[in-house]
Amino acid sequence: MTVAINSDVGEGFGAWGPADEGPLLDQVTAANVACGFHAGDPDILRRTCEASAERGVAIGAQVSYRDLAGFGRRFIDVPPATLVNDLLYQMGALEVFARLAGSRVGYVKAHGALYNTAARHGGHAGALVEAVARYDRSLPLLCQPRTEVWSRAVEAGLCPLAEGFADRGYTDEGLLVARSQPGALITDPEEAARRAVRMAESGTVVSVTGRTVRIAPDGGAVAAVCVHSDTPGAVAIAEAVRAGLTSAGIEVGVPSAPSAGSRALAGATVRP
Amino acid sequence: MTVAINSDVGEGFGAWGPADEGPLLDQVTAANVACGFHAGDPDILRRTCEASAERGVAIGAQVSYRDLAGFGRRFIDVPPATLVNDLLYQMGALEVFARLAGSRVGYVKAHGALYNTAARHGGHAGALVEAVARYDRSLPLLCQPRTEVWSRAVEAGLCPLAEGFADRGYTDEGLLVARSQPGALITDPEEAARRAVRMAESGTVVSVTGRTVRIAPDGGAVAAVCVHSDTPGAVAIAEAVRAGLTSAGIEVGVPSAPSAGSRALAGATVRP
Amino acid sequence: MTVAINSDVGEGFGAWGPADEGPLLDQVTAANVACGFHAGDPDILRRTCEASAERGVAIGAQVSYRDLAGFGRRFIDVPPATLVNDLLYQMGALEVFARLAGSRVGYVKAHGALYNTAARHGGHAGALVEAVARYDRSLPLLCQPRTEVWSRAVEAGLCPLAEGFADRGYTDEGLLVARSQPGALITDPEEAARRAVRMAESGTVVSVTGRTVRIAPDGGAVAAVCVHSDTPGAVAIAEAVRAGLTSAGIEVGVPSAPSAGSRALAGATVRP
Amino acid sequence: MTVAINSDVGEGFGAWGPADEGPLLDQVTAANVACGFHAGDPDILRRTCEASAERGVAIGAQVSYRDLAGFGRRFIDVPPATLVNDLLYQMGALEVFARLAGSRVGYVKAHGALYNTAARHGGHAGALVEAVARYDRSLPLLCQPRTEVWSRAVEAGLCPLAEGFADRGYTDEGLLVARSQPGALITDPEEAARRAVRMAESGTVVSVTGRTVRIAPDGGAVAAVCVHSDTPGAVAIAEAVRAGLTSAGIEVGVPSAPSAGSRALAGATVRP
Repeated sequence: MTVAINSDVGEGFGAWGPADEGPLLDQVTAANVACGFHAGDPDILRRTCEASAERGVAIGAQVSYRDLAGFGRRFIDVPPATLVNDLLYQMGALEVFARLAGSRVGYVKAHGALYNTAARHGGHAGALVEAVARYDRSLPLLCQPRTEVWSRAVEAGLCPLAEGFADRGYTDEGLLVARSQPGALITDPEEAARRAVRMAESGTVVSVTGRTVRIAPDGGAVAAVCVHSDTPGAVAIAEAVRAGLTSAGIEVGVPSAPSAGSRALAGATVRP
Repeated sequence: MTVAINSDVGEGFGAWGPADEGPLLDQVTAANVACGFHAGDPDILRRTCEASAERGVAIGAQVSYRDLAGFGRRFIDVPPATLVNDLLYQMGALEVFARLAGSRVGYVKAHGALYNTAARHGGHAGALVEAVARYDRSLPLLCQPRTEVWSRAVEAGLCPLAEGFADRGYTDEGLLVARSQPGALITDPEEAARRAVRMAESGTVVSVTGRTVRIAPDGGAVAAVCVHSDTPGAVAIAEAVRAGLTSAGIEVGVPSAPSAGSRALAGATVRP
Repeated sequence: MTVAINSDVGEGFGAWGPADEGPLLDQVTAANVACGFHAGDPDILRRTCEASAERGVAIGAQVSYRDLAGFGRRFIDVPPATLVNDLLYQMGALEVFARLAGSRVGYVKAHGALYNTAARHGGHAGALVEAVARYDRSLPLLCQPRTEVWSRAVEAGLCPLAEGFADRGYTDEGLLVARSQPGALITDPEEAARRAVRMAESGTVVSVTGRTVRIAPDGGAVAAVCVHSDTPGAVAIAEAVRAGLTSAGIEVGVPSAPSAGSRALAGATVRP
Repeated sequence: MTVAINSDVGEGFGAWGPADEGPLLDQVTAANVACGFHAGDPDILRRTCEASAERGVAIGAQVSYRDLAGFGRRFIDVPPATLVNDLLYQMGALEVFARLAGSRVGYVKAHGALYNTAARHGGHAGALVEAVARYDRSLPLLCQPRTEVWSRAVEAGLCPLAEGFADRGYTDEGLLVARSQPGALITDPEEAARRAVRMAESGTVVSVTGRTVRIAPDGGAVAAVCVHSDTPGAVAIAEAVRAGLTSAGIEVGVPSAPSAGSRALAGATVRP
């Protein structure tokens, strides 16, 4: 049982470079690297991949709608066939820098509005799944169970990995509490760590109303825990989450497909 | 002795799609595919790669400065280290669509202002060479002999391929006649074909003043002949060039590195 | 009673310039000029404004979502407050070129997805209305009656002008037949002209099922007739529409606010 | 004798918003507002104009090459005629937000690479001057004496205002010391204030080698002092500069044209 700790990184553009992300990368095991459509220029992609690879941190393609002005936070009603190509373009561009750094694209996670939209929008969920399937069907796809994208990923024979958010409050429905509401953010590192351990052990979280809510597949646990890099004290939270998981006897590591060996991959991938 | 006939393709964006390029792709052997920085969106990249691959036409990365508004025709004084990354980003993105189409990026050719700048600007010539070397040093780089980029490509152990322009007039110095000057364009298909054959046989061209000018390496011939896709009657010119070369006993084919086998490639490439 | 004939113009970008739009501008009385967010770069804005102004054609701000890659045809879930500013930015930029050409921005018409969205989406309808109200509340806003944007424009004391589409088929509900359906396009100039006259006389159109449908305010007629510049034969259609309207004794002219004099404009505008 | 204290503001984009610039705007008298081509989206333009206007700070159009990825710091070899239109577009867009805030565009200052290029490049200096002349020839243009743009502005009858940099070291030639060299930055507020006073009193500065160098027109003084908003401690420097100038009996105020009354403005402007 391995759990990946992931954070968004490389989310600058041009003069608006990201801060030094070394301390955060020292704690996480998976870096969701912006690919240029919502953030990330080629210089940043290169630096971020190098900083990740030299720490043994997995490089994930944090793919997005084409929306630099909106940071990928706005739904765009792009035709699914175009979205597939937009996502493939981003994966291919990132791959070069991952390889330059001695690594490779190790998983995929949608960013912002695409992440949320793919949870319930058939066309865009399907596009995300198709893009991964076309690129490399052995790539884990970080998402949430009981969503449209999860179902489609399973149907397509992909490897969806359930993720929980250590630093965010949950509703009784297992959704994130909106940032504008009380209880949206968990900023106490120890509390975040306790939640992460619970997610990784039982696949559940305690909602803002005190209920136990399942956020992993039935009978399972989360395979990835996200710490938002823009939450205040993100490094301390990531550090506490890592320590907490380790203390609980849970191995932290890169996102991995539990049953990769059993799927037929040959001929199905066009990953360069 | 094989000569590649190449043209720029896929140079639309969004609603401004390229015209049907099938007839042109039926004639050429090498498609310089725009990668998104001066033209080319992911949908166009995909369609263009498919249309090329299904005809056995080689797919070349037509890399450019980041300049959609200027179509890559304007010099941008970008730092060389950034340019390297800009070029790698483009190659990686194109590679995905080449692979999806059952092919791969087969060569590199700079577009517009970058093509011209790399001929004489050390920093940008070096960046182009470094990008190719990092990506895949076995990739042929189409350029002109006796230029900065040619020298650096040779020094770096790459495979520069000399190219001539069948539909453009040349000065006594072996440069292209500016488009605003008389004799800049060759629009007669038969004349273009005769020039192409001469380039491919002797490595020379007759300049606008009537002199014989060498445009290939000493003692050699051109390995690629370019037909501009925006020259009036481009398809007819490409057809005549192809027929002319074939009639003269010159094999037309994809760009290829004559001495690829002799170079040490292992460990030097990060092509995904 | 004056009716404006309007068409979209200036919808190129960089190397993808629009064709010569002089012949179309010779027929219409109102030019919907792209402002740079879905199409239109500053060179094109200038040329288009000059070509319009020298013919006495009114210059309209054809404002759009920020979406060059999608040509403004995709809904973007931008926050209304941001949309207001996006629209004001476009109007201000266009104004300079209208003034340079000796004219001014004479009306506003939303483009593509924004046009359709504002018909039913309160937030975006409100943003469009607020942008016009802030910019210059005396500016006519071309839109369709019985839509969200129409209602809000009326409430805000603006001047919405009802427009009909001469070259498009209508459903029984008064909506445009989707382009993928039979009857979507009217390409016969005489038929388009007859429809335009009917719209301008009675405010009605005959739907694809043969019903008479009202597309103007109750008891009124359309104040603007649109001819799509990308419909095949657009110039001939515009010419026929103009001739038809004139023959029917209907004056064609620039979009104008019938009751501008009665509205309190002072202090309410920030138009530069 | 009035001297303007100016700083660059509003230089964010989308999610990369500028920090709270209120404290800096409390000290300066002139805000160089990014217009969207190197930084600045419509939301930021609006907020920045409002924050400037409510403090009585003049709003300047900080116009740039179209280069979001390079933050306008890279020379782009754009045709001068296109550059004129690019600059007009920016001025017009900014004007709307200045007006919305109850102010107006009060002066022009080129940003980054354009500022430096216009000092010596005839085509781009001419384009900057033409853009201002077309927009509103009464607008002060902040630049440096003995440069190409200064000469052309004078020839065109514009109002160039000499500016000095309080927080930067100068060479014996009156140029700024490159940021990579010792003595490039003046970070001591009192030292910056002393330099500002000297510039405003005598039009001179002491170079890094200890020489007295003239940076104002012959016999005159600087009319504007720039404090870089990205210099560490910019607010403290601006505060010290303001206090120093005031203590020395020099009035600080908005950029103004000393001889505006004497120039023929009628008919020459298209400012909306």
